[in-house]
Amino acid sequence: MAQATIEWAKGSIKLIDQTLLPHQLKYIYCRDIKTLWQAIRQLSVRGAPALGAAAAYGVLLASEQFKGRDAKKFTLHIKKTCDYIATSRPTAVNLFHALTQMQNVLTQFSNQPVLNLKALLKQEALMIAHHDQTVCRQMGGFGATLIKNDQTYLTVCNAGALATVDFGTALGVFYSAKEKGNKFKVIATETRPLLQGARLTTWELLRAGIDTTLICDNMAASVMNNQKIDGIFAGADRIAANGDAANKIGTYSLAVLAKYHHVPFYIVAPFSTFDFSASSGKDIPIEQRDAKEVKGFGSVLTAPKNVKVLNPAFDVTEHKLITAIITEGGIIKAPFKSNIKKAHLEYERQRKQ
Amino acid sequence: MAQATIEWAKGSIKLIDQTLLPHQLKYIYCRDIKTLWQAIRQLSVRGAPALGAAAAYGVLLASEQFKGRDAKKFTLHIKKTCDYIATSRPTAVNLFHALTQMQNVLTQFSNQPVLNLKALLKQEALMIAHHDQTVCRQMGGFGATLIKNDQTYLTVCNAGALATVDFGTALGVFYSAKEKGNKFKVIATETRPLLQGARLTTWELLRAGIDTTLICDNMAASVMNNQKIDGIFAGADRIAANGDAANKIGTYSLAVLAKYHHVPFYIVAPFSTFDFSASSGKDIPIEQRDAKEVKGFGSVLTAPKNVKVLNPAFDVTEHKLITAIITEGGIIKAPFKSNIKKAHLEYERQRKQ
Repeated sequence: MAQATIEWAKGSIKLIDQTLLPHQLKYIYCRDIKTLWQAIRQLSVRGAPALGAAAAYGVLLASEQFKGRDAKKFTLHIKKTCDYIATSRPTAVNLFHALTQMQNVLTQFSNQPVLNLKALLKQEALMIAHHDQTVCRQMGGFGATLIKNDQTYLTVCNAGALATVDFGTALGVFYSAKEKGNKFKVIATETRPLLQGARLTTWELLRAGIDTTLICDNMAASVMNNQKIDGIFAGADRIAANGDAANKIGTYSLAVLAKYHHVPFYIVAPFSTFDFSASSGKDIPIEQRDAKEVKGFGSVLTAPKNVKVLNPAFDVTEHKLITAIITEGGIIKAPFKSNIKKAHLEYERQRKQ
Repeated sequence: MAQATIEWAKGSIKLIDQTLLPHQLKYIYCRDIKTLWQAIRQLSVRGAPALGAAAAYGVLLASEQFKGRDAKKFTLHIKKTCDYIATSRPTAVNLFHALTQMQNVLTQFSNQPVLNLKALLKQEALMIAHHDQTVCRQMGGFGATLIKNDQTYLTVCNAGALATVDFGTALGVFYSAKEKGNKFKVIATETRPLLQGARLTTWELLRAGIDTTLICDNMAASVMNNQKIDGIFAGADRIAANGDAANKIGTYSLAVLAKYHHVPFYIVAPFSTFDFSASSGKDIPIEQRDAKEVKGFGSVLTAPKNVKVLNPAFDVTEHKLITAIITEGGIIKAPFKSNIKKAHLEYERQRKQ
């Protein structure tokens, strides 16, 4: 991607309005926190890593706009901002991690004047976004070792440049493989109800010159059975300590179908997507979204008005269905609980060196 | 349903235009074969048993409109009509069975004058439609023995009154159970790309006063895992001699998911849906439909124009994933090949008595 999905632009947060893709590439400039909150809620910006950057930039925006020199008032203002941003969407843990990271700066430097705190928060927010760019490329590098010529891979929702600052998690694997010169095909499931696969993933992959085919979600099993699928790559919104992974609704379905058809199933996500306080998927809250998303398409109603609807935005894939989790620390396999811990500690150790 | 989905109405074929549901209940009157062919192709009338009736009425229409007394010319005219109707859709075998049945009348009574042949064809067409009404109620009766109070069942696409002359196959099971006083819930999958579940099944079930919830196709696995699903009931468009069943795309996916979650999976279809010349699902032709159905919703484009698409209208569920097939001759279980043959012979024997 030439342009970043989200960036800090002279006192405002500049982000691609993903609700308008693939037809229009337009930007939203968030100059207040409410605009950012709404952009997150209506999915103008989405994807767990991008939501981490959005949250960090949101705190930075509140910091920059604070008038005065009272450090106590400033700290309270930042805390209130964090509490407000936290109400936007419940599942992507990267958002909460970023808010914690920003608040930790204030705790760590509680004796500093406001001007210094502002500078430190700015540095931290830019670092969070930059770190995302780095880890996406690291994950892509590890994942690309699994991609072979003349094979066909499947992906769900959008775990691409549009779900991160600028490169992608699952799609980052494809971009890295393409950079290495691999030739392969990708099938994207459309991902109802909001069609992130049809609207965003196909748009990204075609721009990158990757051979892309779109299918409806209910065609994946048939394609696995009749054509050959050589691997499934999905992102994640929150991963529990045991490897259970919450991702866009339909991911769990694909994981079960992959097991039945002997197709390897990979999750691609940075350590910021892990929630070590969740011992299993049962501890991950699942966002329920508006019924009207399921009853129609955009503004067009396609079902009877009075029908009941279930609309969970995410599902949880049990770790036993996952072949491996691709992180910036390498490719993690079962037993997940111990191997995730080990890989995370080792990565943090190296980072601090 | 108060009104029939398809009926013979004073020299024309009257059918509900299902492309307008659930918003408008309007009829198409086919006064020529081309209008009928287009109604079948664009899915104004769909569903394997309804297509059997549509084909029979199509031949009746051609018969009634024939001018003259030359029996040879008449027979040729009917043959041409049958060949033309056969090009409308390839998968639903009921359509081909009905055409064969109508042509058999002419073979059997080849020495009769045109006037008599016309009367015989009319009798046969009305009999085919009437037989569908009868067998749907018989299947409903058998299937209703599997429905229990306070349980939740799932269905895909529309195998209801709208897929038959007036009662339904899979949904007929629910209607029969409701008539018996059972209280249960039904979850309908929306069934992309043409949303027969969202548009038609929910409309039918709500009209029948059945507790109905709509979900996207990719939510079924999550619902099986988190809520309880006590059984899946699906129709079929063609069933091979070994029990492999072709049905709307996504059915195979549900069957695999049902196996994983230990949910019974039932196919509900009359003997007219069986193709004994197909030894397995591999012999069933699968209709590939227009890419634009997948790239958008109605006339709204939601994916990039230039993306490739797969759009198989059906998939095949291997018999090993099927708990039982509910027919007008009773509930058939494995071993399917011998038990289907036995049940069919026994049913035909009783019918002839």
